[in-house]
Amino acid sequence: MPRIFPERSATMTNECRLSRRAGWAVGQPIRYLMQEALSRPELISLAAGFVDQETLPLEATQAAVDHVLADRPRAQAALQYTSTMGDAVLRELLLARLEAADGAALSGQDLAIDRVVLTAGSNELLYLLGEILLDESDIVLCPAPSYFVYLGGLANLGARSYGVAVDQHGLIPEALEEALQQLDSSGELPRVKAIYVCTYHDNPSSLTLAAERRLQIVETARRYSRHGTIFVIEDAVYRELRYFGTDIPSLLAADPDGSTVIHTSSFSKTFSPGLRVGWGILPTALVEPFCNQKSNIDFGSPHFTQQVMAAILQLGLYDQHLDMLRDSYRHKLEAMVGSMEEHFRPLSHVSWLPAEGGLYVWMQVAGVDTGSTGPLFRKALDEGVMYVPGIHCYPQEGEPARHDMIRLSFGVQPAERIRAGVASLAQAIEEVSPLPTP
Amino acid sequence: MPRIFPERSATMTNECRLSRRAGWAVGQPIRYLMQEALSRPELISLAAGFVDQETLPLEATQAAVDHVLADRPRAQAALQYTSTMGDAVLRELLLARLEAADGAALSGQDLAIDRVVLTAGSNELLYLLGEILLDESDIVLCPAPSYFVYLGGLANLGARSYGVAVDQHGLIPEALEEALQQLDSSGELPRVKAIYVCTYHDNPSSLTLAAERRLQIVETARRYSRHGTIFVIEDAVYRELRYFGTDIPSLLAADPDGSTVIHTSSFSKTFSPGLRVGWGILPTALVEPFCNQKSNIDFGSPHFTQQVMAAILQLGLYDQHLDMLRDSYRHKLEAMVGSMEEHFRPLSHVSWLPAEGGLYVWMQVAGVDTGSTGPLFRKALDEGVMYVPGIHCYPQEGEPARHDMIRLSFGVQPAERIRAGVASLAQAIEEVSPLPTP
Repeated sequence: MPRIFPERSATMTNECRLSRRAGWAVGQPIRYLMQEALSRPELISLAAGFVDQETLPLEATQAAVDHVLADRPRAQAALQYTSTMGDAVLRELLLARLEAADGAALSGQDLAIDRVVLTAGSNELLYLLGEILLDESDIVLCPAPSYFVYLGGLANLGARSYGVAVDQHGLIPEALEEALQQLDSSGELPRVKAIYVCTYHDNPSSLTLAAERRLQIVETARRYSRHGTIFVIEDAVYRELRYFGTDIPSLLAADPDGSTVIHTSSFSKTFSPGLRVGWGILPTALVEPFCNQKSNIDFGSPHFTQQVMAAILQLGLYDQHLDMLRDSYRHKLEAMVGSMEEHFRPLSHVSWLPAEGGLYVWMQVAGVDTGSTGPLFRKALDEGVMYVPGIHCYPQEGEPARHDMIRLSFGVQPAERIRAGVASLAQAIEEVSPLPTP
Repeated sequence: MPRIFPERSATMTNECRLSRRAGWAVGQPIRYLMQEALSRPELISLAAGFVDQETLPLEATQAAVDHVLADRPRAQAALQYTSTMGDAVLRELLLARLEAADGAALSGQDLAIDRVVLTAGSNELLYLLGEILLDESDIVLCPAPSYFVYLGGLANLGARSYGVAVDQHGLIPEALEEALQQLDSSGELPRVKAIYVCTYHDNPSSLTLAAERRLQIVETARRYSRHGTIFVIEDAVYRELRYFGTDIPSLLAADPDGSTVIHTSSFSKTFSPGLRVGWGILPTALVEPFCNQKSNIDFGSPHFTQQVMAAILQLGLYDQHLDMLRDSYRHKLEAMVGSMEEHFRPLSHVSWLPAEGGLYVWMQVAGVDTGSTGPLFRKALDEGVMYVPGIHCYPQEGEPARHDMIRLSFGVQPAERIRAGVASLAQAIEEVSPLPTP
């Protein structure tokens, strides 16, 4: 594979004397994929989890900026530092929105804006949680598969990601129980600091964690918190990107007192990744350490984009945008799945999980190595299509990694290119002539 | 002192099982100062290093946003993810600007935009450099005094800050040499990873590192790089805020081949902290590890504010703003120093360093404990004025900390409040009736 950077040489490392953490920071797999995409402009990338370029909210952003800048005191505030936690108006709006979505289910929570923090996307939030919770060799349980950027962040922290099996309803509570039992037996339970779950339309699997499992998972985490709290990190970033079916209450709402679940989300997928506004609701006990850590990194994310997002919500532009976006993505999801049904029907070793939202379809080409050094990836590039090899999405330990999975994204490409990409992928799969496993 | 958060209790730490790093993350001193300021709205704060509210660039920002959003492809790019390194257009503009400022002095450098990175203010850049360079107990040499947020960041990383003496020309090369010799004798030289210097109108001392010392410091760092590179981190954030005298070439320009000096800067002080755009020029060997680390935290700072800053530069609005800003701050600096000359003349134990730029005046009240638990701080609050106790600005080791220093900022307050604040401070100093040291 071409790499953006040459492999780090021993000499260089030695001269620069990089930290141990730098040695743990492997480049994200998306970087080689992005490089590949840049070097072949004609390629149909079904890899990137970017949002659709055509639906980016130019007019809404202009209206919100105008709104903020027309109000002199507000404009001055937006151009000044904010607090480490972030703009209070936006934090209020986010809390109200979550309360409206979860309703009575949140009644056990003592929700207040002093538990809400704003970050540079939810990614910074996830990383900062790692900084304050994880020492080297600490363990985070993750569904197998999981969001690969999160797994990379854990590796960067020297932490261990431990995979737990999923089925079509998401993380399996019994598998979680079993993993915890096993870690307890081996004396490693004190190392388990958190359980990470993307609870809606997961990246990469598109699975939504079933409502009845949410309570069970929180209960399990609490029951095993004998050596200290095992936090449950809810990544709800795709919650509002649902195109079929109905919304269910958050994992946070399954937390009886708000001391276990950390709720994280972002406007990067639902509005604009260029504004980079993420947010979280933390258990009270984590607020101080989180802010201390963030104050050393950037003492607060950009106030300007926070104020712009607040105005977008206040002016009703966010919900308008969401409606349009859901229509657009529903159409593209249908194009992808329709095309998959058409082209993969003759291929009995190809299957995929149903998607009700999000940006991804998670498919299997049974028995075929889909990795970047395997036969299919290169053949697919030759056919003009790129995907994310599923292998990047597996935790380091626990539930074994599968080598025959593929993440397809319908976010970036228009419907006709999605269909062309799927056709090319089918062509590539036929060419590598796999021996289907029974 | 009131604190934003209660002291961390043993129980809480135990239940949450915070990381060792979280234990190292002390809250920044500015947080208790901000809290104090918020709880007493009538207080004249000469503490915060915030920029002047009245000069924030509302119109320029509006014009730049309009410019970006009127160009559809550019607007779409601005609302989409950028690369981890940041927007290429802005990186080009920054490089051209530095080349224009430093001229022929940069001739030894192989400058190219693949050495330029954009971050959330220069603070994130400084912290990320720490992440990739510093293991626990590694050493960074810093002028005594230094920027306290940077010192806090080092502590958060478990690193040691080691103070080196300064005089009116900034860091003393002979003192640096002596510190390195001493660390070499004690076998700790292999632990020394970097030297940090705020090279223009330092925070807190307002000192500018003399031109003839720049080569000497780079040469010294290279001579002691026997166990691997000792990087010199140049914080040039106040370079363009010069109100008297003439600019001198950067420390980067004193690096014969660009492998030693890391140049960092930001638009937070010279344009808007709310846009939060910082930048750096890295030695080539650090680019990959830096980007790997950043890709795990936020894979790129907000593209939107980067594009807005690029437009501000392209439209000539930045230089216009700088001209206005320099006039405004020059006026306020004169107000502060004029008032100090008037009120402190009878107080023979009060002195301060001359300031030619930046946002600060660094003063001594010889023999008086200026700390937050000492007599003067409380008395000053009673008189209605707040300052930053100088003690926060000293590294942990090396050159001893002074307990009788004060950082005053003329950034936020209008001239008449600066004069009133200085008068109140003089009143407080007289009241604590110090015994001047000879």
